[in-house]
Amino acid sequence: MEDIKTIEWVNGKVRILDQSQLPEELVLLEISDHHGIVNAIKNMNLRGAPVIGIAAAFGVVLSIWNAGESDRPGFLGKANKAIDELKATRPTAKNLFWALERMRNCLSGNLNKSIREIKSALLKEAEKILSDDIKTCKTIGKLGAELLPNRANILTHCNAGSLATGDYGTALGIIRAGVEAGKKIKVYADETRPLLQGARLTTFELLEDGIDVTLVCDNTAAFLMQQSMINMIIVGADRIVRNGDVANKIGTYGLAVLARHHNIPIIVAAPLSTFDFTLESGRDIPIEERAAEEVIRCGSKLVAPEDVKVYNPAFDITPHYLIHSIVTEKGIIKPPFFENIARLAKNKT
Amino acid sequence: MEDIKTIEWVNGKVRILDQSQLPEELVLLEISDHHGIVNAIKNMNLRGAPVIGIAAAFGVVLSIWNAGESDRPGFLGKANKAIDELKATRPTAKNLFWALERMRNCLSGNLNKSIREIKSALLKEAEKILSDDIKTCKTIGKLGAELLPNRANILTHCNAGSLATGDYGTALGIIRAGVEAGKKIKVYADETRPLLQGARLTTFELLEDGIDVTLVCDNTAAFLMQQSMINMIIVGADRIVRNGDVANKIGTYGLAVLARHHNIPIIVAAPLSTFDFTLESGRDIPIEERAAEEVIRCGSKLVAPEDVKVYNPAFDITPHYLIHSIVTEKGIIKPPFFENIARLAKNKT
Repeated sequence: MEDIKTIEWVNGKVRILDQSQLPEELVLLEISDHHGIVNAIKNMNLRGAPVIGIAAAFGVVLSIWNAGESDRPGFLGKANKAIDELKATRPTAKNLFWALERMRNCLSGNLNKSIREIKSALLKEAEKILSDDIKTCKTIGKLGAELLPNRANILTHCNAGSLATGDYGTALGIIRAGVEAGKKIKVYADETRPLLQGARLTTFELLEDGIDVTLVCDNTAAFLMQQSMINMIIVGADRIVRNGDVANKIGTYGLAVLARHHNIPIIVAAPLSTFDFTLESGRDIPIEERAAEEVIRCGSKLVAPEDVKVYNPAFDITPHYLIHSIVTEKGIIKPPFFENIARLAKNKT
Repeated sequence: MEDIKTIEWVNGKVRILDQSQLPEELVLLEISDHHGIVNAIKNMNLRGAPVIGIAAAFGVVLSIWNAGESDRPGFLGKANKAIDELKATRPTAKNLFWALERMRNCLSGNLNKSIREIKSALLKEAEKILSDDIKTCKTIGKLGAELLPNRANILTHCNAGSLATGDYGTALGIIRAGVEAGKKIKVYADETRPLLQGARLTTFELLEDGIDVTLVCDNTAAFLMQQSMINMIIVGADRIVRNGDVANKIGTYGLAVLARHHNIPIIVAAPLSTFDFTLESGRDIPIEERAAEEVIRCGSKLVAPEDVKVYNPAFDITPHYLIHSIVTEKGIIKPPFFENIARLAKNKT
């Protein structure tokens, strides 16, 4: 994935790879105002908790990039309104709120500066969120790779790769680092209905990198485990709370139950920006419900009666007691999660 | 589903509803030779264990329907060759082999008759396989409905309905009979990748009958169970062996593990023709692996890199110890399955 950037700032615009069109078309979108970022996040032209945060940060920059340099209240109003609009795009991934909080702090920390200087500070902050994320993923990858057996048959769900982050990925970062460390790795990628991020994005990324990957339907995961074809499951996360419960792409909870039944460890890979230290239990995480259209159509083809009721939650909650470990850039967290996450929160501040 | 017949014999031809085009198009195919039936089974224009058996039986009739009445060895050769070709269409569902065995027995039991009389006997046998199946489904429905709570929230997988049988269905037969008995039933239908029989067929059937149905992606089933939205799972079967292990559409095994974790009963509904009394364990059931194309394309749309490896088993094996009960037309089988299935086999002969 070295030649294709998931997201970058180019001459006053944000350039993103349109993930909704992969793998059929490789289309770059140039976005010049924050409404474009709002729409790209809502419509999932770009998805994945870390990169949603990065995109939102650049969205804040776009909202004021062309603002005049005399109307100070107008400038601040624009930035704050953009932050609120970006916050409302998707409810589950913590990284979105975390990145916008960083942008809000950057704004308030630079109020004594000129508008030109504030613009520059905001851009610097967004670029730092991006570059930090890439470093973070590399660290997660390196730390997590130590958990991999020398011959690892890994099941992964959705896409927690380069396309979900600044680069390198969280779950796929661990796989990449394992391959770089010379481990023999075979990946099974759940296709991940309804939007098929596993089929469209994870296999695309891994093929680009020459990593051995086999695509399966989500409902095939249990059979793979029964046949001893999997010895580790690695997933990303959209939000992790104080007791270690994890919100991630719908289907993760089922994999965790299956993993327990087959005595296979399930590893969660996520940066600290995914942790919500204000919530105690996964029950408190808002779960986004998305449109029926995602399920009843595939491209333009109708694959169910048009008037059928659909229940389409985008995430589920995996209770901490099913999770083997959580790999962060600050180290690997193991049970007891509540105590060990509390320690992490303390060290962080 | 009263106006639309899944399969029928009409003036020397077999008319089937093309399930591969539902729900977008309601197309009837008229098939006039047994090669047409072979292709319809292989390409899944028609699928579902019981109806595959019915179609194969009619295929045998088609193979000799227009044969001359003087060349006796030629006539018998045609019929036997057709039986062999029909047998080779799909490997997992027992009903296919069971129905062809009935046709082979009918043929050998009428060898002393004229060719005209043998033709008529074979047609009569195929029509009896069809009409018996409909009666069988009604009985399974009635017996199984007694297992339903008065307020049943049922998860179902794939399609074990009218479209999988002569009419009425096995798993959906129980649901229909429950509704007829005045129970309050809400159905969640797994879409069932890759061919989406749940999305395309089960919801279509249930909407036609005015039964409350909600479509979900396969990977959402665990979340529904976790949220206490399901109190029973009902599925069909493609083959059941002596110890009670069940081959059914891929994904069934995962549901059974999830059902155990959430303490939800999983009920299997199947006619005796699905039982293979020659095999002792599910390990011995051949599992069909189907083409990668089913997973990487949706209609004409490519949803994964064209060159990605795909593993696409069409069935899995659910071990008997996860199953609550098996509903047949001869009664409900409960654990210990080995003993109770042995008793069934004995009573049958």
